[in-house]
Amino acid sequence: MKLKSDNLFYLCNSMIQADDTICALATPNGVGAIAMIRVSGKATRHIISSNFSKELEACSSHTVHFGYFKSLTEDLIDEVLISVFDHGKSFTGEESAEITCHASPYIQQQIIQTLIDSGCRLAEPGEFTMRAFINGKLDLSQAEAVADLIASQSKSAHDLALKQLRGGFSSELREVREKLIQFASLVELELDFSEEDVEFADRSELKQLVSDTLDHISSLAKSFELGNAIKNGVPVAIVGAPNTGKSTLLNQLLGEERAIVSNIAGTTRDVIEEVINIEGIQFRLIDTAGIREGAEEIEAMGIERSKEKIIQASIVLCMADATIPEKVDDVIEWATEIQIQHPDKKVIIVLNKCDVSTFSIEKCDLPYFAISAKVGQGLSELTQTFVSAMTEGFDLSQDTIVSNARHYEALRLTEEALKKTKEGLEEGISRDFIAMDIRTAMRHLGNITGQIDVDTDILGSIFSKFCIGK
Amino acid sequence: MKLKSDNLFYLCNSMIQADDTICALATPNGVGAIAMIRVSGKATRHIISSNFSKELEACSSHTVHFGYFKSLTEDLIDEVLISVFDHGKSFTGEESAEITCHASPYIQQQIIQTLIDSGCRLAEPGEFTMRAFINGKLDLSQAEAVADLIASQSKSAHDLALKQLRGGFSSELREVREKLIQFASLVELELDFSEEDVEFADRSELKQLVSDTLDHISSLAKSFELGNAIKNGVPVAIVGAPNTGKSTLLNQLLGEERAIVSNIAGTTRDVIEEVINIEGIQFRLIDTAGIREGAEEIEAMGIERSKEKIIQASIVLCMADATIPEKVDDVIEWATEIQIQHPDKKVIIVLNKCDVSTFSIEKCDLPYFAISAKVGQGLSELTQTFVSAMTEGFDLSQDTIVSNARHYEALRLTEEALKKTKEGLEEGISRDFIAMDIRTAMRHLGNITGQIDVDTDILGSIFSKFCIGK
Repeated sequence: MKLKSDNLFYLCNSMIQADDTICALATPNGVGAIAMIRVSGKATRHIISSNFSKELEACSSHTVHFGYFKSLTEDLIDEVLISVFDHGKSFTGEESAEITCHASPYIQQQIIQTLIDSGCRLAEPGEFTMRAFINGKLDLSQAEAVADLIASQSKSAHDLALKQLRGGFSSELREVREKLIQFASLVELELDFSEEDVEFADRSELKQLVSDTLDHISSLAKSFELGNAIKNGVPVAIVGAPNTGKSTLLNQLLGEERAIVSNIAGTTRDVIEEVINIEGIQFRLIDTAGIREGAEEIEAMGIERSKEKIIQASIVLCMADATIPEKVDDVIEWATEIQIQHPDKKVIIVLNKCDVSTFSIEKCDLPYFAISAKVGQGLSELTQTFVSAMTEGFDLSQDTIVSNARHYEALRLTEEALKKTKEGLEEGISRDFIAMDIRTAMRHLGNITGQIDVDTDILGSIFSKFCIGK
Repeated sequence: MKLKSDNLFYLCNSMIQADDTICALATPNGVGAIAMIRVSGKATRHIISSNFSKELEACSSHTVHFGYFKSLTEDLIDEVLISVFDHGKSFTGEESAEITCHASPYIQQQIIQTLIDSGCRLAEPGEFTMRAFINGKLDLSQAEAVADLIASQSKSAHDLALKQLRGGFSSELREVREKLIQFASLVELELDFSEEDVEFADRSELKQLVSDTLDHISSLAKSFELGNAIKNGVPVAIVGAPNTGKSTLLNQLLGEERAIVSNIAGTTRDVIEEVINIEGIQFRLIDTAGIREGAEEIEAMGIERSKEKIIQASIVLCMADATIPEKVDDVIEWATEIQIQHPDKKVIIVLNKCDVSTFSIEKCDLPYFAISAKVGQGLSELTQTFVSAMTEGFDLSQDTIVSNARHYEALRLTEEALKKTKEGLEEGISRDFIAMDIRTAMRHLGNITGQIDVDTDILGSIFSKFCIGK
């Protein structure tokens, strides 16, 4: 099996038998008008032609053909449309076809059964995309973006995945990698001539190059917090004593975005999340108003009860009641304590009921908003803060945002190796060690797009998360 | 709006605005790799081109194009494949296109929203098929077959629908209709010359023609019982005293067909049906073994309790126990009574436990089978009887089987009018009345395929049962 491009890695044979032809239902199961079955592999046209009312062997790529699909016993299964794609011109890079039939489970099953009886194999989950990867049509990060794209539920998540699929992230990494290759080759050249103690590379330039690259990688790694939030939604906790207006705030936030609101039953029992979509980013309001609050919670300012919510959240809204000014200081104190305990979270004080009170907070180190949940006053400023709290330091439309945990891990390891390289350069350690560190950095970076040998375990775990037919 | 072929009927404008371009998701909702959005109407290419990275106006019919689909604000929505079909060469008969995108709800919604913003209208349920009908690509019975095909769950149901979709039924009706037209024209010719008392048509030949046609129509109408059973499954009741082996028989029947068995919760509360598939026909074993039987049932031979099941069933299996010979006569008597009360049902006596008893039934007017449910003896002969009981008098592979209640009703009305025609001929009544009767017959027959004016109410009810995107 020859691998195109520089996707050079060992693949276990059991997983990839690129010589055979695979098929699978690509459209969702369920009731609909139309279903599509994908076929890919070098025998695609041959297998389909033997079951189709038309000869497809000589057809041009990217043409659609109407006809009858028959079983091996010549029983008519359905009227179908078949699109054919030439080797090198398809998604997988292989000869392939798409069979569009009526979306009856019986017909889908019969067509797939006939394809299998004629020599196809049922595709493993993600195998079509994997073949695209093997044939150099996509790199690993692009392949992963396909799954993210399908799962995306908000504009931001969709845009991130699409940018990754189109290769924006890959080309950025490629640039970084080329700089590192250049650096490595200079260092290795010196190694070759080490006995002569020649110094080809300007050390200060090398230091600058590593330092710049490190900054770039660190910034990408840092973007994961935002990327992950965008991909999975940003958890927001609304905490505070009863009657401060938590439910009213929740309902107002939901009400403003009613059209795109949905209830998601969480994985944990008793946890219900309400989802709102602000500027294309999903915010998950964790289990807030739904909790039946006991009297004891009033005393404890809800801190005990809220701990769990706070740990889960990226943004914590601490509710204070403007009609009970004497308690507001307590809220500020308590919110400050949360911020100290959780410096990674955005803690915001929300002074509610400002429509019926003129009280205002005079001094507070935390960001705070005077609102009236009841009449909807000050809410857009508040939700705007949700967005800016998450996107701080990033330009969503320009910057590459990393949203994949595997990429983040690889970036973190790259960062580590680059730090060692930088330290080595500064400390003037042996070129051998510097070359080793830079190679480690390149290997970790290459893991993201699959440009160097990727563990088949990693590959398996990437592609098996796909659904069948992708 | 011009109607092609002879689908000449009045359509209410609110339902059909054939000048506009419609779009809808054609694949099922849910998780999958690929989704497809259909677009049909004269502005199809124009609308899509304005949102696609490629110009499609000049592309050949039946070609597939890869590119980027953009929103009106030029935001990238997805990488898509678009197949284009020329006016007259598509399913609907109109210029149309199929947009294949990633099966993310967000992407699907964005693409459909963009199409609507660009001038498409969201299609009504069944509107694509309705347009195919209006443009003469399908007749009514073929259009109805599309819905049946998608819903078909067994080979027979699938084959019936496919035959109907391919126009087998329509062409058979067309032949009958042509004969009737010929007959009618002869009679009407006589009417024109009635003052001269000319008789152009040979009365005995006319009688023969009407009689043959009547037989044909009656046979089609009669096939509805089978067609309906095939479409919805054949209800089978297993009745009898406790411990005669009803549950064992049920389990054996299910076990033999384990792979294609499923539980279907019926529409009635407490009714559970087990479905088995024999020779491509679905048999629904109604609520048999699941009933907890009381002692009183032993006395009453289960008749009371079984009444409901029997009324629902097309086939009634009356279980007798070969190890209690003295009670077998009672079962025969009781089964005979059921048969007399329900002459339309197939009543079968099943003598169970024949592996441990040599008792056999000597005289019985009903069909009976000696089996052992426990060891599986005699079961294939029994299930074979299920099939032959249903298909009696019909050749599934050759004959046209009517499975649509609307068609059955139209056939019954045609039959009635033909009977009147036949009687009129025999009684020598006025040609005016004969001509009227034959026209009534033709009108009812034409209703099936939509060849003559069909009520828009009927049309609405046919197409609204479709799913969106079809």
